Amino acid sequence: MAEVKLLGLWYSPFSHRVEWALKIKGVEYEFIEEDLQNKSPLLLESNPIHKKIPVLIHNGKPICESMVILEYIDEAFEGPSILPIDPYDRAIARFWAKFLEDKVAAVINTFLRKGEERVKGKEEVCEMLKVLDNELKDKKFFVGDKFGFADMAANFLGLWLGVFEEGSGVVLVTTEKFPNFCAWRDEYINCSQNKEYLPPKDELLAYFQARLQAAAASK
Amino acid sequence: MAEVKLLGLWYSPFSHRVEWALKIKGVEYEFIEEDLQNKSPLLLESNPIHKKIPVLIHNGKPICESMVILEYIDEAFEGPSILPIDPYDRAIARFWAKFLEDKVAAVINTFLRKGEERVKGKEEVCEMLKVLDNELKDKKFFVGDKFGFADMAANFLGLWLGVFEEGSGVVLVTTEKFPNFCAWRDEYINCSQNKEYLPPKDELLAYFQARLQAAAASK
Repeated sequence: MAEVKLLGLWYSPFSHRVEWALKIKGVEYEFIEEDLQNKSPLLLESNPIHKKIPVLIHNGKPICESMVILEYIDEAFEGPSILPIDPYDRAIARFWAKFLEDKVAAVINTFLRKGEERVKGKEEVCEMLKVLDNELKDKKFFVGDKFGFADMAANFLGLWLGVFEEGSGVVLVTTEKFPNFCAWRDEYINCSQNKEYLPPKDELLAYFQARLQAAAASK
Repeated sequence: MAEVKLLGLWYSPFSHRVEWALKIKGVEYEFIEEDLQNKSPLLLESNPIHKKIPVLIHNGKPICESMVILEYIDEAFEGPSILPIDPYDRAIARFWAKFLEDKVAAVINTFLRKGEERVKGKEEVCEMLKVLDNELKDKKFFVGDKFGFADMAANFLGLWLGVFEEGSGVVLVTTEKFPNFCAWRDEYINCSQNKEYLPPKDELLAYFQARLQAAAASK
């Protein structure tokens, strides 16, 4: 039995954060793909409060919430650190991670909801991109000189947002409007370390195209 | 000039979390009361993204978001630890802190908003209390044997919720319905360490009574 299991979904940015952290640390793990239409007993008993992926199970003990799992992985396993070392830098990384976490819903509303929710979501996403573009001026990453905690929190913008844009035809990000954000995103998608961790874009696009079409067709 | 400054509001549970952490660590600090109608230049330049309290300024460097500040205080200052030591216990504390943070809006909606927002908020608060009551069965605190990170995140339930109930006449918490939560709350209000950190209940009640009346009178 594997010591570390991850209950996740291959297309989920939240699962992906955890996979990324485990790979950085060099932790071997068993990935267990969940079926949201038919959640496994293991998922339901491991995350009885939210009944959501990802859940990391380490020596039989479950940990839930992707950003909480990242902190856990950083503290429980040896290897390169995910959060910076300096307390102030750590606070800055956590600040941006929280900022980003609080905006995930706006991205979902923009592409997978309709009506007023979509309009409000789109406004909020554009506002967020403005803030991030300003923050990433003269910076390659959110904190420090390599991808870390806050960049992992931003992964739904690194790959998934572009997939949503391509799948829906709604384009929010342009190099003219958000040059610094686009530079960060290019680095995110193309840096060699990241590349091998990311789910294949074509498969992601095919999957979400079906989801976006279903959302558009629904009332 | 004080090395540590806290920009806050005496009646805010978010400020109070930070004060509690600083007091546990024995850190001397200057409390600077903000005026939300006329925010100070120091607040605006220290928290340009959210323009909100609390902000901790340590040696001239600002840290924002109360739970991020708590992690910072725990890492940057000597003294009793706020988070548990064991990585798994730390993850559990962070899980509950996030759960609680995500519910603050529901409490505000229940008491300070109207119409549908209020109805939805009330449902969410009752659902949350059920979850917490179940979690606190056979436990005195969220994690471990003393007040810590998750209990600090829960402070808006420890004192403020009761003040809102008393000020509005809307009672959600009874010993019959939520005995374990009530036992935690009694400990929260009455334990000697906590008692000296909490803002005076009478003053809090007088302040929020005016706010609740204004909210009830507004359209």
